[in-house]
Amino acid sequence: MTAHSHSTQGAGSQFYDIVIVGAGPVGLMLSTCLARWGYRIKHIDNRPEPTSTGRADGIQPRSLDLLRNMGLKSAIMAHKPARVFEVAFWNPDRSGSDIVRTGTWASCPSFIDARYPFTTLLHQGHIERVFINDLESNGVRIQRPWTVTSFKSDENENPDFPVYVELKHVDGTATETVRAKYLFGGEGARSLIRKQLNIEVKHIDLIEHVWGVMDGVVKTDFPDIKMKCTIHSQHGSIMVIPREDNMVRLYIQIASSNEADWNPRKTATEQQVQESAKKILHPYSIEWERVEWYSVYPIGQGISNRYSLDQRVFLGGDACHTHSPKAGQGMNTAFLDALNLAWKIHAVEGGLAHRDLLKTYESERKGVAESLLDFDHRYAKLFSQRPPATNEVEAVSSSRMDNHDIEEDEFIKVFKESCEFTSGYGVSYGPNEVNWSQSHPATSTLMHPEGTRLRTGHIFINSDVTRVVDANVVHLEQEIPLNGSFRIFIFAGNPSVTKVALRDLARGLGSKGSFYGSYTRSDIDIVSHHEQHNPHSLFFTLCTVFAAKRSQIEISRDVPGLLARYRDHVYADDRWDRRVPNAKASAHAKMGFDEEQGAVAVVRPDGYVGAVTALAEGYETINALNEYFSTFCTKKLTGIAPSL
Amino acid sequence: MTAHSHSTQGAGSQFYDIVIVGAGPVGLMLSTCLARWGYRIKHIDNRPEPTSTGRADGIQPRSLDLLRNMGLKSAIMAHKPARVFEVAFWNPDRSGSDIVRTGTWASCPSFIDARYPFTTLLHQGHIERVFINDLESNGVRIQRPWTVTSFKSDENENPDFPVYVELKHVDGTATETVRAKYLFGGEGARSLIRKQLNIEVKHIDLIEHVWGVMDGVVKTDFPDIKMKCTIHSQHGSIMVIPREDNMVRLYIQIASSNEADWNPRKTATEQQVQESAKKILHPYSIEWERVEWYSVYPIGQGISNRYSLDQRVFLGGDACHTHSPKAGQGMNTAFLDALNLAWKIHAVEGGLAHRDLLKTYESERKGVAESLLDFDHRYAKLFSQRPPATNEVEAVSSSRMDNHDIEEDEFIKVFKESCEFTSGYGVSYGPNEVNWSQSHPATSTLMHPEGTRLRTGHIFINSDVTRVVDANVVHLEQEIPLNGSFRIFIFAGNPSVTKVALRDLARGLGSKGSFYGSYTRSDIDIVSHHEQHNPHSLFFTLCTVFAAKRSQIEISRDVPGLLARYRDHVYADDRWDRRVPNAKASAHAKMGFDEEQGAVAVVRPDGYVGAVTALAEGYETINALNEYFSTFCTKKLTGIAPSL
Repeated sequence: MTAHSHSTQGAGSQFYDIVIVGAGPVGLMLSTCLARWGYRIKHIDNRPEPTSTGRADGIQPRSLDLLRNMGLKSAIMAHKPARVFEVAFWNPDRSGSDIVRTGTWASCPSFIDARYPFTTLLHQGHIERVFINDLESNGVRIQRPWTVTSFKSDENENPDFPVYVELKHVDGTATETVRAKYLFGGEGARSLIRKQLNIEVKHIDLIEHVWGVMDGVVKTDFPDIKMKCTIHSQHGSIMVIPREDNMVRLYIQIASSNEADWNPRKTATEQQVQESAKKILHPYSIEWERVEWYSVYPIGQGISNRYSLDQRVFLGGDACHTHSPKAGQGMNTAFLDALNLAWKIHAVEGGLAHRDLLKTYESERKGVAESLLDFDHRYAKLFSQRPPATNEVEAVSSSRMDNHDIEEDEFIKVFKESCEFTSGYGVSYGPNEVNWSQSHPATSTLMHPEGTRLRTGHIFINSDVTRVVDANVVHLEQEIPLNGSFRIFIFAGNPSVTKVALRDLARGLGSKGSFYGSYTRSDIDIVSHHEQHNPHSLFFTLCTVFAAKRSQIEISRDVPGLLARYRDHVYADDRWDRRVPNAKASAHAKMGFDEEQGAVAVVRPDGYVGAVTALAEGYETINALNEYFSTFCTKKLTGIAPSL
Repeated sequence: MTAHSHSTQGAGSQFYDIVIVGAGPVGLMLSTCLARWGYRIKHIDNRPEPTSTGRADGIQPRSLDLLRNMGLKSAIMAHKPARVFEVAFWNPDRSGSDIVRTGTWASCPSFIDARYPFTTLLHQGHIERVFINDLESNGVRIQRPWTVTSFKSDENENPDFPVYVELKHVDGTATETVRAKYLFGGEGARSLIRKQLNIEVKHIDLIEHVWGVMDGVVKTDFPDIKMKCTIHSQHGSIMVIPREDNMVRLYIQIASSNEADWNPRKTATEQQVQESAKKILHPYSIEWERVEWYSVYPIGQGISNRYSLDQRVFLGGDACHTHSPKAGQGMNTAFLDALNLAWKIHAVEGGLAHRDLLKTYESERKGVAESLLDFDHRYAKLFSQRPPATNEVEAVSSSRMDNHDIEEDEFIKVFKESCEFTSGYGVSYGPNEVNWSQSHPATSTLMHPEGTRLRTGHIFINSDVTRVVDANVVHLEQEIPLNGSFRIFIFAGNPSVTKVALRDLARGLGSKGSFYGSYTRSDIDIVSHHEQHNPHSLFFTLCTVFAAKRSQIEISRDVPGLLARYRDHVYADDRWDRRVPNAKASAHAKMGFDEEQGAVAVVRPDGYVGAVTALAEGYETINALNEYFSTFCTKKLTGIAPSL
């Protein structure tokens, strides 16, 4: 995509599209997206350097998809992170003096259709640096160590740059004042911006905890030291998390507010924690060769009451939600907060969407944070009652994935939800203007055709297809990079059956009044013919997927009108998939689409399904899509009359 | 593996283990291997910089496996190379004035069990730099632009460093003289070292060709511009090869010695070649936006008569074999030349193997070069007769891989051989001291048990297994990095069945006189307990693979003796494989091993199968292995009597 600048004309050097405070996962993800899409960013952090030790380190399966979609996965994997495929449970044996393994299960079982069915564990600093390098290649440098001193937001005073921010070097030697369209607070749990906005944090679970966490290299005969383990013994409990470079992280709960002698200031030395770990791991031995990081911190579960008051100053990441580190969700939730906000800012500032779209940032992301905390609470409670029984573990294990006869008890149900949620694939958004539902203003009878397995507000389903131009086998859901565009996947079924429908859709898309024709690039005439994703519009990328063998598809014959311009986004749905072994066209089948008739899936720029329509002859399909986009787009979209 | 230095004691700074001349693929691969294994290297190249444009660019599937095994694949893939999955054939239509596609087929069809069933196309300079960076991390810098002026090799004069080499800066401003154990000539087709040794080049195919090759960015409506294409038209022939960064390479034959007006000095300008291409591609249009590189060069097929005269001065790569660039084999053959020599030098200099092992470098690699040229010749001839018919293309296509009823005509047979050969999976070595056969001195009845599908001298078969310690799903053939060690894969079948056999094998390996016990590391007492691959020996790495589910394997209970030290190399053969869908233990099944009884595979350091033995109770298995290794090892290996 050609870089494009947004109304910074005549604005001078101290005017920015956004000021981002905090260069942890949430700030970096937001900054990286917006920098790539051409926005002008002031990004500060109060630490002199990126995270050097400790902190979050778990990348969930769905986050790895996202990082791959951004082209950052291989830089992260180059650090050789640990990969957690299974979780082991250890409990006291009958005598009570030794621990024994009572079960293991997959961290991302095969009932989840994940590309990377494991948790990736890597020091947060490595991850931050991957983003920082990418930012620098787009001309953004984090200004360190700087902090925000005050800010105000007033659209009346300056409608173009309503946010006024005062910044200072942490040692007070320098200050700056800047004007921006947006301010983002990603400064962590003690967010200054949240406090200045007088936004309260609501505590869902009143129990508070004091945690000790230790990263180090150990010598041990404990057999599961390279697995994620939950260990309960008569001497206490530990969670074991493997890390890169032969390291292991141990989480030890030092105090809990539901204990009689609760003291939030209770602490423990490094040596005390090690002694405690030695007792818990008995009969196994453990010695530390090196401790990289040790920290004790109190933590409670809380959610910020608001994520924004005026859709100009936003909060995200730990500034909005804090929870137990054991869930390994911190960084992942931060990434998705940022991504959700990034594409909406892009849609609004690029002129595609009404400003109201920004309100869905809070409603969508706060909903997810609430689900996370609620689930975390229920899951922990269930676990504290009893460890999972062997048959329960078996019931959810991969080898039994096809067995639908198993009666799902409460435990298994919660476990399954847990896996979906913690893998990231279960994160979903409720109905609103971008997530179609029966109550959405788009009421065309073509919406959400029967049999559709895609769920609006949920992640697009993964599938393999063959790219027609070069016969490469590709992951369809990865074919459009994170370019801020809506992804229109036209599943074109059998080309001889859908010939007319496809032609009519292409005509409809090309008409001036359609959602597609209404938002063309201003530089459309000089776009390179090598541009693959955004030849006409910065907000839409089109893919056409035929239920046919690659050798039977001829783009010049089968792909009509403007769809043919996306020659690199024409695919043959001709790959075998173990999940739908008898399907002729696996991707169609996985989406729940008819292999003859096809259908159209609108996927939001963040990979969540927005709407699905049938693919019909005439202009009903384009009109249904126009209806869907009309709900949040700025321009009046004109449908095409059937007679045209 | 801990770095270890080899007899450079007291040698002074101008003494090296090896002088390597030429920093193309063959020299870089040799240097990279030996540098990693701790050897002292003088590496020169007469070019001031790595390749900047043009030259070889095809990495075949098997070479990608190798690069991955070296940890270099991701650095290469970061350049976003083109991937060729299919080859398209274009020929004149009935009228003769236009070209039409007459067929396509997979470049690495699924009858080959390849991890990466495509050819990777990337500018040679990028590939060279990946090796150069790795070398620098091991303290080796290429000295440029330097060349060799003379050399001699005399074991009588200096038995430790028999090779004397004079080097000079190409502009003559500086000279150096060095002593080394080996000299390697990887300077390309016009090798000075080869000439000084008076080694002749034998021409197998007497036909010579003049080729034009052009790399550039084009604008075209030719639909297969992103595929590998062979285009024949009434105006001439072109081969199209896609490249990274929207580039495409065109090969055009400008003259051939089998034409009436043959002139080896015939040439063509860039513009002439473009005009010619435009005519050939009719009715499609093509325009060049940019030409990155254009060159015309004559080439003939030839093989060096010898690869070494004294096992001290060696030749490899283009210095030994030249052939048509169209086969895309140059770099791949160079890599395998270097790898073959590297591990043998390591085995000899490390004290494991007799010096005679080095003679197998010529016999093995010259054999491969001869097969390549012979095959290239036959294949070209077959093609010149007629294009493949549709049913022939279908017969070899992936969808028909399971159909054994198809009668294979000559064309299909040659095509299949072609695919195996060009993918690299078909490259194989004949029987000799390291590749067991019926005529090998190891005559134990346990050798090569019935049903074995592994073939000695052929590449080890790919399989997925689950690593026991961390439940990671891994590629078994990639689990041991390219560490110069023999890879002993103990397929241990059913643990309850093989309990005694495994215990006896572990005892046998641990006995002082065994091949394993005879070559322990001198620093064995101070090896880190985190060392995964070479805890006891620099020449052997052991893996144990059970035909059981991961959760049923307990290393402390099931893995006896020294095998347990390789805790990171214990695997569960519990992954489903589409190629053996009904197998309980897919890896065992793919190797042709009994799922109860198992077997032992000895894989050479370069990934080729050396020998296979049954896994039996008592000491017959260790004795069979000792017999095998006795053939080329320096020490007398003592078997264990059954009564022990």
